[in-house]
Amino acid sequence: MEKIFKHIAIAGLGLIGGSIARDIKDKGLADTVTGYGRSPERMKKAMALGLIDEYFVGYEEGLDAADLVIIGTPVRMITQTAKDMAPHLKPGTTLTDVGSVKAEIVAALEPLMPAGVCFIGGHPVAGTENSGFESSLSGLFESRVCVLTPTANSNQKALARLERFWQMIGSSVILMDVNAHDRIFAGISHLPHMVAFSLVNALVDMEGFEKQILEYSAGGFKDFTRIAASDPVMWRDIALMNRDNILRALGFFENSLAALKGALAGGDEKKIEELFQKSRDTRRGI
Amino acid sequence: MEKIFKHIAIAGLGLIGGSIARDIKDKGLADTVTGYGRSPERMKKAMALGLIDEYFVGYEEGLDAADLVIIGTPVRMITQTAKDMAPHLKPGTTLTDVGSVKAEIVAALEPLMPAGVCFIGGHPVAGTENSGFESSLSGLFESRVCVLTPTANSNQKALARLERFWQMIGSSVILMDVNAHDRIFAGISHLPHMVAFSLVNALVDMEGFEKQILEYSAGGFKDFTRIAASDPVMWRDIALMNRDNILRALGFFENSLAALKGALAGGDEKKIEELFQKSRDTRRGI
Repeated sequence: MEKIFKHIAIAGLGLIGGSIARDIKDKGLADTVTGYGRSPERMKKAMALGLIDEYFVGYEEGLDAADLVIIGTPVRMITQTAKDMAPHLKPGTTLTDVGSVKAEIVAALEPLMPAGVCFIGGHPVAGTENSGFESSLSGLFESRVCVLTPTANSNQKALARLERFWQMIGSSVILMDVNAHDRIFAGISHLPHMVAFSLVNALVDMEGFEKQILEYSAGGFKDFTRIAASDPVMWRDIALMNRDNILRALGFFENSLAALKGALAGGDEKKIEELFQKSRDTRRGI
Repeated sequence: MEKIFKHIAIAGLGLIGGSIARDIKDKGLADTVTGYGRSPERMKKAMALGLIDEYFVGYEEGLDAADLVIIGTPVRMITQTAKDMAPHLKPGTTLTDVGSVKAEIVAALEPLMPAGVCFIGGHPVAGTENSGFESSLSGLFESRVCVLTPTANSNQKALARLERFWQMIGSSVILMDVNAHDRIFAGISHLPHMVAFSLVNALVDMEGFEKQILEYSAGGFKDFTRIAASDPVMWRDIALMNRDNILRALGFFENSLAALKGALAGGDEKKIEELFQKSRDTRRGI
């Protein structure tokens, strides 16, 4: 395959970073992949698996060799990691990340980039309820969406190359305004997670009154609370970094739930059916 | 296979009734299956597919030949259907149903049974988001749970035969107190449906402010709102028939959601992580 970037550095080899490394190697998308992280053990493991060609602990050495740097650390560490790396990047390098929240990161990092280095926010929409290097896999991004959030400051050439890179990984690229990204994902991803967590916790609370309830919850309940087993620390950080948008989305949800509860309490058959029909029509249209 | 019942009548050949008929025929569980329903077209189709051997429109004729009668009509019509059938049943016949709500039905029907006829409530936990005869399929109940809700009045021999019947269909049978059934399913099934419907509707409301939001909701959102496409009329009826228990479960959920919202609004990292951890531990334990 065409090598858009010759030397790619990846900071943080978790589920996303590790899976990107696998795809780069599987598809031959670069000559060299350098791993950066805090855990030498994990880096050695990645080396042994052939996912990276070399690694550094800390964010200083070797960075002037990379023409693409991808930050795959936990979302709340992305800004600090990029700050540590920035002084060591060479002009012409593109810096990107894979965080699920974008506005805070993009606002913090754009002004810090050295001359000739462009930061473009990225969000491959490809998580599972698992996380960590051990869960990384080839083809994770195949037929998935990767959102990029360029701004008026973004270098158009760097953007085009980054788009092409993600397409070669197998994803469709969507360009989105960075603030719209955070509002939209608050609704379609973060809100459902908050709801799923709360639903499971409500059943734990009900268990105090209905002893066997959790034993019986293996059926349908299991399907739609799969995401309630997602990484608590990762989701704590997403929740805090997109707090205002999530609170706003929760407001919409509370109103929607209150409308149903009111109709149910009042025995309003017509209204209940109407609300369920609205949901079915929408869901089927998606 | 052993034929516990020689002649089985099924009223209402929807997803559940139709799938039971398929299994009886596939496994040779009875000599004769008679269909009862309001739509001659559907009955003819079921005959043509070999699922039933004969049919009657209305609930009078031929019932004295059946030793097991299964009511698979929409949940809100079960009581009336059973009332219409009761006078025509012969002593020794077992009458059962497949409704997702049980207390109201069992309380209404037990006193109405003619001498020698036993009504035992049933709930095969095997729905999909689809409904109707066209969605019925062989093996729907394989490795699933079927809850039976006998009472102190139930004939123990009839109960044992009905249990055996469901086991031969492929399900594990759980005996449950009828009121506990409705409280438990309010939590593990009805509440999640109310939440999924409300979640989808909240996104419709958000669309007024975030134009493209529903376009982007194809990903993870789609998985955990599958059930939001469930039949609105069926769910309206379940909601109304189990109203008090669902309102109570909604109360638990609202408290759980409020705890998370409060922690988020207050930026309480520790509390947020704790709530997510509780959810993950529980979900993994299921």
